[in-house]
Amino acid sequence: MLKVKKVALDTAPENTAFLSRCCTAYRAEEFTTLKKIEVISDSKTILATLVICDDADIIAPEELGLGAPAFRRLGAPENARVRIAQAPPPASLEAVRRKINGSEMTSAEIKAIISDIAAFRYSPMEIAAFLISSGSFMSTGEALALTRAMADAGSKLDWDLPIVADKHCIGGIPGNRTSMIVTPIVAAHGLCMPKTSSRAITSPAGTADTMEALARVDLTTEEMRAVVENEKACLVWGGRANLSPADDILISVERPLRIDIREQMVASILSKKIAAGATHLLIDIPVGPTAKVRSRGEAVRLRKLIEFIGDQLGLHLDIVVTDGAQPVGRGIGPVLEARDVMAVLRNQPDAPGDLRARALFLAGRVLDFDPDLRGGAGRARAEELLDSGAALTKMEKIIDAQGPPPSESVLGALTMDFPAPRSGFVVAMDCYRLGRIARLAGAPLDKGAGVDLFKKISDRVEAGEPLYRIHASFKSDFDFAAAMAAEDAGVRIDAQGGSARGAQ
Amino acid sequence: MLKVKKVALDTAPENTAFLSRCCTAYRAEEFTTLKKIEVISDSKTILATLVICDDADIIAPEELGLGAPAFRRLGAPENARVRIAQAPPPASLEAVRRKINGSEMTSAEIKAIISDIAAFRYSPMEIAAFLISSGSFMSTGEALALTRAMADAGSKLDWDLPIVADKHCIGGIPGNRTSMIVTPIVAAHGLCMPKTSSRAITSPAGTADTMEALARVDLTTEEMRAVVENEKACLVWGGRANLSPADDILISVERPLRIDIREQMVASILSKKIAAGATHLLIDIPVGPTAKVRSRGEAVRLRKLIEFIGDQLGLHLDIVVTDGAQPVGRGIGPVLEARDVMAVLRNQPDAPGDLRARALFLAGRVLDFDPDLRGGAGRARAEELLDSGAALTKMEKIIDAQGPPPSESVLGALTMDFPAPRSGFVVAMDCYRLGRIARLAGAPLDKGAGVDLFKKISDRVEAGEPLYRIHASFKSDFDFAAAMAAEDAGVRIDAQGGSARGAQ
Repeated sequence: MLKVKKVALDTAPENTAFLSRCCTAYRAEEFTTLKKIEVISDSKTILATLVICDDADIIAPEELGLGAPAFRRLGAPENARVRIAQAPPPASLEAVRRKINGSEMTSAEIKAIISDIAAFRYSPMEIAAFLISSGSFMSTGEALALTRAMADAGSKLDWDLPIVADKHCIGGIPGNRTSMIVTPIVAAHGLCMPKTSSRAITSPAGTADTMEALARVDLTTEEMRAVVENEKACLVWGGRANLSPADDILISVERPLRIDIREQMVASILSKKIAAGATHLLIDIPVGPTAKVRSRGEAVRLRKLIEFIGDQLGLHLDIVVTDGAQPVGRGIGPVLEARDVMAVLRNQPDAPGDLRARALFLAGRVLDFDPDLRGGAGRARAEELLDSGAALTKMEKIIDAQGPPPSESVLGALTMDFPAPRSGFVVAMDCYRLGRIARLAGAPLDKGAGVDLFKKISDRVEAGEPLYRIHASFKSDFDFAAAMAAEDAGVRIDAQGGSARGAQ
Repeated sequence: MLKVKKVALDTAPENTAFLSRCCTAYRAEEFTTLKKIEVISDSKTILATLVICDDADIIAPEELGLGAPAFRRLGAPENARVRIAQAPPPASLEAVRRKINGSEMTSAEIKAIISDIAAFRYSPMEIAAFLISSGSFMSTGEALALTRAMADAGSKLDWDLPIVADKHCIGGIPGNRTSMIVTPIVAAHGLCMPKTSSRAITSPAGTADTMEALARVDLTTEEMRAVVENEKACLVWGGRANLSPADDILISVERPLRIDIREQMVASILSKKIAAGATHLLIDIPVGPTAKVRSRGEAVRLRKLIEFIGDQLGLHLDIVVTDGAQPVGRGIGPVLEARDVMAVLRNQPDAPGDLRARALFLAGRVLDFDPDLRGGAGRARAEELLDSGAALTKMEKIIDAQGPPPSESVLGALTMDFPAPRSGFVVAMDCYRLGRIARLAGAPLDKGAGVDLFKKISDRVEAGEPLYRIHASFKSDFDFAAAMAAEDAGVRIDAQGGSARGAQ
């Protein structure tokens, strides 16, 4: 028997265990071939990747160290007695091996794989094996089974309503915070829209990050239910509701490997929405040269796959393909984006017109899910609710109901205006590059950091006139962002603006 | 700048770095998305997987911890100043992504991938992505390029001789220590055979483990050259010669994933042999129900792939398919196998006949590479060299030249005779199971542990008569092995022995 010791190393999402090379109870080297062990306490067994330790200050010979996630998941106190055993790969990995050899996975196999992944029984290399084995070919049947298995692997919210509206944007467009305008409009109309969002992973802000500049977002499921009961809507971070938990684990491997497989992306999106209890879902696919989806053809293939799976799972879908040529609104980064959102809701004259138009278009499509509304009347109804201030009132109530954010966010005080190198017209804006500059400036961890755009595509600029302002709170972030902007500002200016107008 | 601190955690083969969540110089969380960082010292840059640390006793805010392999590879002293930066995935991973989408990899792409892997620039999940992406389909051209890239990635031995003989067995047969008999026979004849072998990974003994019961095996390349210069042969562990270094790294991922892809296996074998300077290579493919290769058809496919690649690389090949129905010789485990080998070389009357016959057959095929020998005369010449004691003398000289082993090996003193549950004939022996029992008994780390077989296929046994003896040195190992044998002994006995003789 070994004594459990917590080792404060964050190996998330992976379980890691540490054993002394001089372990008294086990021959440590015997476990190194397969790398994975079972850790068995009185009440629970977890799998963990084993690391051998040669420092008795970290792990003594009679101890078993557990990294922070493994310690939490085993749930035993420090100094509890545990046994360990060699752990063969999870049985479901056999299906991955068959998939490598060309077979199609059955629904039961996919269910077993996802259930093992959600229980942290797969190591990152095993997750990579699953993702890549199905990366070169995945049938629509497999994609459907994957979506269903992912939705079933965690908690499910049930709102007991005929229409639970939701929207999702395929992403890649900085500043595109339409959810924070669409949701209060839809709720002001009377439809239920319990919006759960993610935090940014590689972008400068997710909806949850921007909303957190205005309100608390890490609500428990019970707190979220209370807000929705009163306000018909919420705008919260989905991370505490255990919705499609395998998704976050898969993303932790997809991201560093930069693999991006259509079927896996659709399963990720739809499984989260189904688990969140959505019945009617609007999906926005922005297409642009630097957006996530880069051609109309790609958007159509994606739309068809979403339609197939959504139909099988009983989701009412509306899928729109929109212009993703440039950032939406002016701000990039949580505080700046929250400013734009509130300007639109308040009907301020300086509110960004593109953000307003986009939000109204999408809100109208969501309202068109309402059978009591005359066909095609959604857009006009959305405008009415926005212009009348009903949407603003609703947003203020949602913010009140969710409570104040953990800390007040202020715009980064270090600023630099980035000047146009020449006169002419803005003909292209690089969404990826501008997002990267905002991220280097500190967004989203530093909510006040980001990029504030003064010019958009087809705008006329004079040489030396500022294109955008970088905001940062810390000198090192500021320098990184300024250096990246100096290398390539992400804005293209031509003497002739003709083609730009055409592109837009 | 951060101060380097060695953290005595063995994360081999992976580089791991540890950063405090309260790091003063960098925002630790910013690096967690891609998990990998560059560690930059004055003289060298390495890539490492990042783990965030919340214990200042392990890593202080101004320190960067490096696990044992990363610390060794960076080569900077403790407290040296280093910088870190976000590390994108290696550029060669782009080829892996294209392979996932169905393209064939070019030789240049494969070369770049293997060179990055050999330089420890791939994390285990990235290695898994490479292996799996090429797992479902690999052209013979890709397999050839992979073999060449793996051979080129490390050191190469050049013996400056027209014939440098070598042999390799595909494996899975416990006790099959023919190399230790074939090598002295071939050297006694006068051909050069500088044999490098591996240690066991999942089997109870590799040739290097068994040889180490008799002599030192961890020779440097220079020491190995000196032995071969005098004796024409050696029997050493290949681990110090840096031959095909990517191979060991690939195996560290293949093994826990239990992926076993023909093209990758052939590249592994041939790249090591080419790097070791072999010109003439005998490959033994044992076929049996519990061997690595389980059917004649599989053996033929394997043979053809080896022939294609070997021909392209200018290797002279002889490939034989042999009976792999049961273990060879009597002992399983380093000391027991060394005993069998020496009994054959000493022409003892109790020497295992099957090991002798197999070694003579294979030695004869290797001797047939000698153009000065009459066609087909190899087998008789091998027998002459064994019977005359010339092979024994050569083996004794090789042992003397390599020097004594680091410690004397003695047979495990804890023994248990495992009795036949019924009378009849032995009709089947499970190579995998018997190897596993020997391994649980402590082999190969405990050289004196293992299984000593008293009966083989087609032998008559009486109920209660011992089938084999388990040897162990430690009580816990002994109990594990005895429990596994009690669960399934790995030996099948039928009242009728007819089919057994047929199978053999």
